[in-house]
Amino acid sequence: MPRYKITVEYDGSKFCGWQRQQSDAVDSDPELKHSVQGAIEKALLQMTQEEVLVEGAGRTDAGVHALGQVAHFDLTVAREPQRLQAGLNFYLRPTGAVIRDVQMASDGFHARFSAISRQYRYIILNRRAPSSLLLQRVWHVPEVLHVDAMEEASQSFLGTHCFNAFRAAACQSKNPVKTLNHFELVRHDECLEWVVQARSFLHNQVRIMVGTLVWIGKGKLPVSAVQTALEAGKRCQAGPTAPPFGLYLDEVKYHPDGQ
Amino acid sequence: MPRYKITVEYDGSKFCGWQRQQSDAVDSDPELKHSVQGAIEKALLQMTQEEVLVEGAGRTDAGVHALGQVAHFDLTVAREPQRLQAGLNFYLRPTGAVIRDVQMASDGFHARFSAISRQYRYIILNRRAPSSLLLQRVWHVPEVLHVDAMEEASQSFLGTHCFNAFRAAACQSKNPVKTLNHFELVRHDECLEWVVQARSFLHNQVRIMVGTLVWIGKGKLPVSAVQTALEAGKRCQAGPTAPPFGLYLDEVKYHPDGQ
Repeated sequence: MPRYKITVEYDGSKFCGWQRQQSDAVDSDPELKHSVQGAIEKALLQMTQEEVLVEGAGRTDAGVHALGQVAHFDLTVAREPQRLQAGLNFYLRPTGAVIRDVQMASDGFHARFSAISRQYRYIILNRRAPSSLLLQRVWHVPEVLHVDAMEEASQSFLGTHCFNAFRAAACQSKNPVKTLNHFELVRHDECLEWVVQARSFLHNQVRIMVGTLVWIGKGKLPVSAVQTALEAGKRCQAGPTAPPFGLYLDEVKYHPDGQ
Repeated sequence: MPRYKITVEYDGSKFCGWQRQQSDAVDSDPELKHSVQGAIEKALLQMTQEEVLVEGAGRTDAGVHALGQVAHFDLTVAREPQRLQAGLNFYLRPTGAVIRDVQMASDGFHARFSAISRQYRYIILNRRAPSSLLLQRVWHVPEVLHVDAMEEASQSFLGTHCFNAFRAAACQSKNPVKTLNHFELVRHDECLEWVVQARSFLHNQVRIMVGTLVWIGKGKLPVSAVQTALEAGKRCQAGPTAPPFGLYLDEVKYHPDGQ
């Protein structure tokens, strides 16, 4: 069966997260949010009349956006990638998800297990006035932040650490040791933006990292808090979980040969 | 009476435009869009119990956004600017408009007549896939565009011209001669973005300029079309009016002394 690799952009505020939910079966309530996975599977069913399982690279939570989520699926009948993209986007149009790219993939390609790195972005709007044009696209933090302290503390996250203090209680990962290859804080105008890259992340890891850094920026925690929490490995020593709508799944990378 | 100068950001998709409309008097229909001016006047009434006239620097159309619209109004009782800002933003919260800044202004200050320049921005998303995260924030143009031709044609707009071919039929301005001090096209990733600056503009001028450039980019008009339309002064020689939701009123400038 031909396998396809798709790149997906979505507005997280319109979904209950990536992963299929019971709510996906309910069509009668326009207020009820569906999952991105469910929306793409439904679009595939409408277009191809095939019941298809779509596997994503990362399970983003409700409210989290994606610029470059990657997923794969198999079809029984081969279709031309550009036509597949156009057809899916037609059926997805009302949902808030868009297929940015469709490629043929090798049989061995798996969106989740073949991934060699994931990049996320977290954006804070740091000004007195709330957001209008960036509503539900950023975390609005009105307080004055000590950005130099946040920048210094950010450095402590780089490299390989046990991130036990920086994961949700519900996190199912067996190994809390992760390696951050890249974690940079960029300021522009009224925004603070982190770009973070690793092979994989724990559940809520980026949001707890950012929540901790914002507490450091507000002076509620010392710069050393990151180091202390990493060493102690206790969730209570880290800051709060930053809201989902400042977070973007930016890009997922694969080996060039296996796609 | 103390006069205040406010800087306003708004999501144009949530309003019927800047200018007060009859729809502002109707509160019963949640689908009916109100004006930005009406929303601010209502917030001022709720906060101060004063019926206040708010005068804006530019009358943006329905769907057009603002990052830095400027307006002024008088109150009978003086109020501390930061408290005024916080109070107005509290009452404006559900509307999609936000007060970014409040300053005391001199008696002679007039948001519209004291302005010495206005800057607009127009953003196009140029890719096959429609927009998800930038829905109603950009004009989605899926066709391949000859950007070099558009860049060359853009240059012809610079300087002083009669812009008769580039204004709406309903434009009420007596003098169609305008001077563009700045008109630059910047490409980044999948976006094309123009920044344009002049003392003032005709009705729909920027949108017709952009619509014409997109037709040039699609090959429907030659590069020389801008020059030809400027000289002939006929609306039918320019391209279509670009949609409102790609347009942003960026900034309004005033003499430093008169604010």
